[in-house]
Amino acid sequence: MKLNIALLPGDGIGPDVVEQAVKSLQAVADAFGHTFHFEEALVGAVAIDKTGDPLPEETLEVCRRSHAVLFGAIGDPKYDNDPKAKVRPEQGLLKLRKSLGLFTNIRPVKAYPTLIEKSPLKKEIISGTDFTIYRELTGGIYFGEKKLSENGTVASDLCEYSEAEIERIAHLAFKAARSRRNKLTLVDKANVLETSRLWRRVVTAIGKSYPDVELDFLFVDNAAMQIILNPGQFDVILTENMFGDIISDEGSVIGGSIGLLASASVGSDNAMFEPIHGSYPQAKGKDIANPVASILSAAMLLEHFNLKEEAEAVKNAVEKSLEKGVVTPDLDKDSKFGTNKVGDFIADFI
Amino acid sequence: MKLNIALLPGDGIGPDVVEQAVKSLQAVADAFGHTFHFEEALVGAVAIDKTGDPLPEETLEVCRRSHAVLFGAIGDPKYDNDPKAKVRPEQGLLKLRKSLGLFTNIRPVKAYPTLIEKSPLKKEIISGTDFTIYRELTGGIYFGEKKLSENGTVASDLCEYSEAEIERIAHLAFKAARSRRNKLTLVDKANVLETSRLWRRVVTAIGKSYPDVELDFLFVDNAAMQIILNPGQFDVILTENMFGDIISDEGSVIGGSIGLLASASVGSDNAMFEPIHGSYPQAKGKDIANPVASILSAAMLLEHFNLKEEAEAVKNAVEKSLEKGVVTPDLDKDSKFGTNKVGDFIADFI
Ligand SMILES: CC(C)[C@H](C(=O)O)[C@@H](O)C(=O)O
Ligand SMILES: CC(C)[C@H](C(=O)O)[C@@H](O)C(=O)O
Repeated sequence: MKLNIALLPGDGIGPDVVEQAVKSLQAVADAFGHTFHFEEALVGAVAIDKTGDPLPEETLEVCRRSHAVLFGAIGDPKYDNDPKAKVRPEQGLLKLRKSLGLFTNIRPVKAYPTLIEKSPLKKEIISGTDFTIYRELTGGIYFGEKKLSENGTVASDLCEYSEAEIERIAHLAFKAARSRRNKLTLVDKANVLETSRLWRRVVTAIGKSYPDVELDFLFVDNAAMQIILNPGQFDVILTENMFGDIISDEGSVIGGSIGLLASASVGSDNAMFEPIHGSYPQAKGKDIANPVASILSAAMLLEHFNLKEEAEAVKNAVEKSLEKGVVTPDLDKDSKFGTNKVGDFIADFI
Repeated sequence: MKLNIALLPGDGIGPDVVEQAVKSLQAVADAFGHTFHFEEALVGAVAIDKTGDPLPEETLEVCRRSHAVLFGAIGDPKYDNDPKAKVRPEQGLLKLRKSLGLFTNIRPVKAYPTLIEKSPLKKEIISGTDFTIYRELTGGIYFGEKKLSENGTVASDLCEYSEAEIERIAHLAFKAARSRRNKLTLVDKANVLETSRLWRRVVTAIGKSYPDVELDFLFVDNAAMQIILNPGQFDVILTENMFGDIISDEGSVIGGSIGLLASASVGSDNAMFEPIHGSYPQAKGKDIANPVASILSAAMLLEHFNLKEEAEAVKNAVEKSLEKGVVTPDLDKDSKFGTNKVGDFIADFI
């Protein structure tokens, strides 16, 4: 198979970890006889610094002519608390999602037996946890109209959803449940929000075409409790953009290391794969960032193109590195392995 | 002191637990020579069933002529999944908050040593946790304009905040931090939302008048992680309505039993005290509901009127009941004590 892959390393440790993911993809290409063509482009704070734009048109072009995008991380503290900052790195990420039509963010949450002790939650609570969150990614309050009154004293954000936006992700989520344990939980706030009531109505209607999938509903406040009280109850969670942002970061804590979690953002014509951890600027270039989440993002990319055996090879190599203790200092403070060494071990094992 | 207290037991186990709180208040009145006058009124599903309105005008009147309101619980599953339901019990609660101007919800989160083993989180993570959440309660997406297009295919909710709404709660939160460990964390999503940027600007400005309080900022997705990774880092958390709903329910899990947590909702002219647990309809009238959260709500009520010694007496009695194992089955499945017995023990001890 020939794949054109856009590389968007972005800010902070983004470049450190994407480099390792590329090594793994190259190893897969060599071992399985594929051709992966990589093309790098700017996004985020580095793009602002170089071009004034967090998502230059050139970057969008590179993504559009690729089959998939491998993304690093975004964000730089120097933009966070500057009220005069007219452009922020995150705008690049949001515009990228919107421009490429990446309407579904998929985040698997799994408790790795080798890391279970690292979790802040008790072993008996998390063992066996294995669920996936389907978060709507191009709608809701993220993209609704934003207003600031002229005198600056009143601000607003509009949360809006259409039936069509809910339908397309709902179908993906039901299908995912079907290929798993046949359970779908819609997380919303239907006792307060009109948009949530629309979600509930549309998802219920679509559920009729998936009679083999058990559908249930949970208010988001209750979901925030249930995820840490009894994560084993979930199979597929479906939710809107803002709730998904919160719930999936909360869920990411379960496994014991956010440095291991990957995500996919998919649309009709394109797909992007990225670690869920942030840009962690303090660690940039220090050869200490954990590359596993980025490498597992590459595995999700392979799966997306139905290269199942190849994806398994990457995941096995990752598990081997965990077993053998070839891990970065975040997982073992006495470790003598850096970002590069871990990336090399995994690529070699593939 | 003479206090008129409105009792709004509401739905499910609400009446079961409010009855016990009244016993404790009566015990305080007897022991300390106060006069508490109680007046009961309808709210929630029971109010809909009897009057068609989740918050009858008569109930509002009772609250307005009282010094404080003791609230039970609200909600009945029969209204949750009925798309044709034009009135929902929760509307009663929201209208009550708005009509009484209860703009700040205060929720203490504490790890009780006697219950630390019950938490899904590890002991070393939670021990020493002691923070308070200040949640804005009468603004934001809860009360902004809601729309549903005529053909029912597009829905929206508006999240709106004004400087004035942010200022009044921010002052309360800064003052609270001052009386505690001098740290205030604003939880928002300023990298995406215009309202969050207003919050950040206003709270930063007010912070200048509280130079002794350290102010920091956390994105809500990160906050959802930090609360379970390292809850000990927080002192006072300030946040908007929807984020507060999610974060405070998540925080309620830390202590090991939601059956113990109380909250206060305060405004300029009135104040309401309630357990944070829901109406738990399955347990209604079975003498198994844990009355402690409701009793601790009564303690918060006493504190609100500066009856510190009285509040301490109630809290001591509760701690005694926990120590002695005079607890409901949710805390000890072999317990032979019901709602009433626990309520009696605590009132007698006072
Ligand atoms: C950086 C930020 C805009 C982004 C979001 O809120 O979607 C991030 O938190 C995420 O979840 O990918
Ligand atoms: C019942 C519901 C409307 C309410 C809310 O969302 O505010 C509840 O969850 C709460 O936190 O008091």
